[in-house]
Amino acid sequence: MLAYIVESFDRSTKVIDFHYPNELLQRNNWELSDEPETLDDILISCRATLKYAIKTAHPRYFNQLSTGLDMVGLAADWLTSTANTNMFTYEVAPVFVLLEYVTLKKMREIIGWQEGHGDGIFSPGGAISNMYAMLLARYKMFPEVKEKGMSSVPRLVAFTSEHSHFSIKKGAAALGIGTESVICIKADERGKMIPSDLERRIVEAKQKGYVPFFVSATAGTTVYGAFDPLMAIADICKKHDIWMHVDGAWGGSLLMSRKHRWKLNGVERSGLMQSCNQMQACYLFQQDKQYDLSYDTGDKALQCGRHVDIFKLWLMWRAKGTIGFEAQIDKCLELSEYLYNKIKDREGYEMPQHTNVCFWYLPPGVRYLEDKVEKMKRLHKVAPVIKARMMEYGTTMVSYQPQGDKVNFFRMVISNPAATFEDIDFLIEEIERLGQDL
Amino acid sequence: MLAYIVESFDRSTKVIDFHYPNELLQRNNWELSDEPETLDDILISCRATLKYAIKTAHPRYFNQLSTGLDMVGLAADWLTSTANTNMFTYEVAPVFVLLEYVTLKKMREIIGWQEGHGDGIFSPGGAISNMYAMLLARYKMFPEVKEKGMSSVPRLVAFTSEHSHFSIKKGAAALGIGTESVICIKADERGKMIPSDLERRIVEAKQKGYVPFFVSATAGTTVYGAFDPLMAIADICKKHDIWMHVDGAWGGSLLMSRKHRWKLNGVERSGLMQSCNQMQACYLFQQDKQYDLSYDTGDKALQCGRHVDIFKLWLMWRAKGTIGFEAQIDKCLELSEYLYNKIKDREGYEMPQHTNVCFWYLPPGVRYLEDKVEKMKRLHKVAPVIKARMMEYGTTMVSYQPQGDKVNFFRMVISNPAATFEDIDFLIEEIERLGQDL
Repeated sequence: MLAYIVESFDRSTKVIDFHYPNELLQRNNWELSDEPETLDDILISCRATLKYAIKTAHPRYFNQLSTGLDMVGLAADWLTSTANTNMFTYEVAPVFVLLEYVTLKKMREIIGWQEGHGDGIFSPGGAISNMYAMLLARYKMFPEVKEKGMSSVPRLVAFTSEHSHFSIKKGAAALGIGTESVICIKADERGKMIPSDLERRIVEAKQKGYVPFFVSATAGTTVYGAFDPLMAIADICKKHDIWMHVDGAWGGSLLMSRKHRWKLNGVERSGLMQSCNQMQACYLFQQDKQYDLSYDTGDKALQCGRHVDIFKLWLMWRAKGTIGFEAQIDKCLELSEYLYNKIKDREGYEMPQHTNVCFWYLPPGVRYLEDKVEKMKRLHKVAPVIKARMMEYGTTMVSYQPQGDKVNFFRMVISNPAATFEDIDFLIEEIERLGQDL
Repeated sequence: MLAYIVESFDRSTKVIDFHYPNELLQRNNWELSDEPETLDDILISCRATLKYAIKTAHPRYFNQLSTGLDMVGLAADWLTSTANTNMFTYEVAPVFVLLEYVTLKKMREIIGWQEGHGDGIFSPGGAISNMYAMLLARYKMFPEVKEKGMSSVPRLVAFTSEHSHFSIKKGAAALGIGTESVICIKADERGKMIPSDLERRIVEAKQKGYVPFFVSATAGTTVYGAFDPLMAIADICKKHDIWMHVDGAWGGSLLMSRKHRWKLNGVERSGLMQSCNQMQACYLFQQDKQYDLSYDTGDKALQCGRHVDIFKLWLMWRAKGTIGFEAQIDKCLELSEYLYNKIKDREGYEMPQHTNVCFWYLPPGVRYLEDKVEKMKRLHKVAPVIKARMMEYGTTMVSYQPQGDKVNFFRMVISNPAATFEDIDFLIEEIERLGQDL
């Protein structure tokens, strides 16, 4: 594992040794059988697993929002696995429950909530967190939904930007609200929700007899990295008495940067948590325990068992301090700016302005086409081919997608602490190398 | 960490070095600050974290359904942390996605589903899995709920045993079905759902105009470890055209034991998965990728990012083989039987018969009380005090709870592979030592 880590940081190794699913299955015997394997075979399996894995620590891996490997974080994860417990109760995870308590307190302080206000819990990712937010908003307005279900309340509608994360709709589908009751608000060309359109749609929904209960603003949209105007949205939510949620899965950490936190101004006006999930299972949350039961936080969760996620974040935070995170965030944004400036006037690139640097590379064969329709059709196919070639060569990885009426473009997100200016230069050269014949 | 592991298996060390929450917070400076800590301080934090953690590997730790530490499993977890990726797509987790595919195929085979039938996904725990089951059942009967919400359908009702896990109600609350629409079916004295009561309640619900859509049977209830009669329940579900779910979080692994798998006869008749959660986010599940997109399983999940849980199970399975799991399961059940036989006729114990060995210890001062009400009142307080003392001394840990009209009793579950007959003997002696004065 240590050799793998060292190798991962080495730019001369591949980001991925790519193979197609059937190829990997044929090349490796990964089937499960009745008989045990020898320890040697187990080690061979471990080596193969790492050989064909993505090197997410690689300085040129830019594919997802989360990239890079933090050594203290890794150590913390190993310790978490070693402790091998679960967040059920204070009883079985005393330290981790307290570290979650300390960390959530600090996070609320950074958001700007007054002491003693607010609550929180670590959940298995942003999608489930968005679902929690919707649950809380619904519970606040109609607590009877918990017992009586959605048939006891009027038709609820939620609002979110057309650029928001798909988990808002997924959550609405699961919670029995329905995807059609999620009203998508127009975003401006930079991907920010347009407050006047939000208010217009709220009024419209009320006129139809629907009950607006939830606005999900996004601080860092998935594709453009746009920050919705939280202050203006908070004003509208206050006026219409609607729960405001801020999805900060991507951009929330900017709160730790003195230079960039203004982008989240207004986040302190978003809703506070309530315990709407409590079921008081008496085999787990016994009321006659000897310790302060407010530390049995498990009943706030949708889950019963919860993976211990806290230690990794807590230990990294201790090791870096808030200023360490700040430096890391500022550096990522500086690299984004560098990339933006580099391709702004470069031949063969087009780009709308965004926090995530989103851009098209137009190979010479596409660049000069006069037929606009044909040009877009051809351009749409460029990014998938370049990406596939990147994976074949294993040199770098970056994401692409279409958005609205825009054909496939690259979305460059920089969260990898190992990335440097040279890696940005490399990315551009590589895109041109792999795409010039298209 | 290695020293901690070795120590954990040593019976002479404490299971827990127990302290009250405020005490732990005062004793350790765990606050997060702006400035980074030194590496030495980080190591001190790591040591403190392990010092005050529960030793879940300890042979005398019986507190939760999952106990014990498997060394291959731990190695797999470390490797998972090192690979540091996510189950989004095949693109970012090629090996892990394939191992999940292989493992799910094997699991379906063990359940007894025909090849090519069935589907599945690893979710963050049993509670979320039960929620998935309810989602699937609802989607199967009323696919329009996804878009139109619960207001588009008649009132749905779900059925589960009064001994089932609290997550069924939690899920119903979240999904907008409402806890009052979860009808609790009577269980017999061993904790098994009574099929005739199920059918009676289904008919009753239909007469009221409600639509029964979901029956959750339990294979291994949380407290008694009871197995609902799956065949009889499947017959009723078939007759009334209701989705049958089997919650096998606790007892499902008995399918791997030739001796015990009959307890789950009928599980192969439970419902099959459908993709009701799909949202087709185009930034993640691009349709123009170069590989077989059926391996981008992420859109089946409620989550967007998913922790890599597969490797731990897969590597343990390879190292043990199915027969290794079988031996481990058989041994746990043998130890349960040993404990059952040991306390059956022992003075001061009372016990209903269950798979999980549930029992009361009656200290001499309670044992001979003639006033029945007073006796139950006193007995109710015995288990919490003994448990608190166990934690103070740190010698062992076992769970307790009341159930229905039964006062607090111990629930002894044996899943710890390190436990032996001697550890069972120790538990009994320790309960008597700690409780005799009560």
